[in-house]
Amino acid sequence: MSKPKLTFWYEFASPYSWLAAERIEALAAAAGVEIDWRPFLLGPIFVAQGWTTSPFNLYPAKGNNMWRDMERLCARTGLPPLTRPDPFPQNSLLAARVATALPDASRPAFTRAVYRAEFTHKQPIADRTVIARLLRDSGVDADAAMAAAELPETKAALRNAIEQARSLGIYGAPSFITASGELFWGNDRLEQALAWAREEG
Amino acid sequence: MSKPKLTFWYEFASPYSWLAAERIEALAAAAGVEIDWRPFLLGPIFVAQGWTTSPFNLYPAKGNNMWRDMERLCARTGLPPLTRPDPFPQNSLLAARVATALPDASRPAFTRAVYRAEFTHKQPIADRTVIARLLRDSGVDADAAMAAAELPETKAALRNAIEQARSLGIYGAPSFITASGELFWGNDRLEQALAWAREEG
Repeated sequence: MSKPKLTFWYEFASPYSWLAAERIEALAAAAGVEIDWRPFLLGPIFVAQGWTTSPFNLYPAKGNNMWRDMERLCARTGLPPLTRPDPFPQNSLLAARVATALPDASRPAFTRAVYRAEFTHKQPIADRTVIARLLRDSGVDADAAMAAAELPETKAALRNAIEQARSLGIYGAPSFITASGELFWGNDRLEQALAWAREEG
Repeated sequence: MSKPKLTFWYEFASPYSWLAAERIEALAAAAGVEIDWRPFLLGPIFVAQGWTTSPFNLYPAKGNNMWRDMERLCARTGLPPLTRPDPFPQNSLLAARVATALPDASRPAFTRAVYRAEFTHKQPIADRTVIARLLRDSGVDADAAMAAAELPETKAALRNAIEQARSLGIYGAPSFITASGELFWGNDRLEQALAWAREEG
């Protein structure tokens, strides 16, 4: 019998996507749910809503509290102190293309490595040398992965993922979607999404 | 020794404020925290951000998922099935003025009664006969409370609450603020806000 599935839609520039990426594997294992890691870009979806940057920048009170909330949640989750990317949001196109091109089995470790570089070590994730190092540290052939990221089929696959996200009703990250299409938004909903997937399975 | 305090900022038109209003008393009692129920209006704060209505209306994908999320959360919280107010958001000025004018001890029961009328029974909370009935059902002298709601000092107190909310960095509802000024946004953060207040106390 196959495990129930949950798709984890994440954006590399998104702080709360990072928290979900740190938490999801242990929780999914405990729930007996299989996770499909699906990188996408929120930028095009935000632009379609009339936003030119993150809502955390557009609405300063919201942004201030998000950073404070992230500091508190890092402490609660046992993560090292947060460093704020500069600029925020980081350009996540390269990381998303690389993650899209990777084999499924390599995606989780690379994804977490990118987030930690970005939010713990304040490194520029649009920088090719940074991404190549993170690939090597994840045990991946960095040259091959960087080349695969630039293939037309990779670029098309990421564009398709964004279009699919939008058509599924996704408007933020992280989002979780069960096999039946039940959509949960936000790191706060991870446990509920897993429970729902399990009940469907 | 006095109990640690937490201020509960809520908006009568806000679905997630309702969930917090249903949950907060038992959780606060368990945490040994005293709650200050503080009604305010989000409308003026939204207008200052350039929004003419709720973001759940401005961004349909976000709104669709909020309603679905509320349905799920009502079931999880043991509440009756949600009914969507029409129109949404309801005009919450009258309810907020009445709640502002009530004695502290009468505010929680009246507040919950308004929310249940709005989100369970689809009643128009801007209607004076609805509010008067809810007051009576809460054991309050309805005529006196309705009259107190229209006093200039009540209107000024509500305006001051909105201005105070904005100056404290509040941008959504529900929000929770500890004695030291730590701000938590959202029904999802209620438990963390109570724990923080307790540690401060």
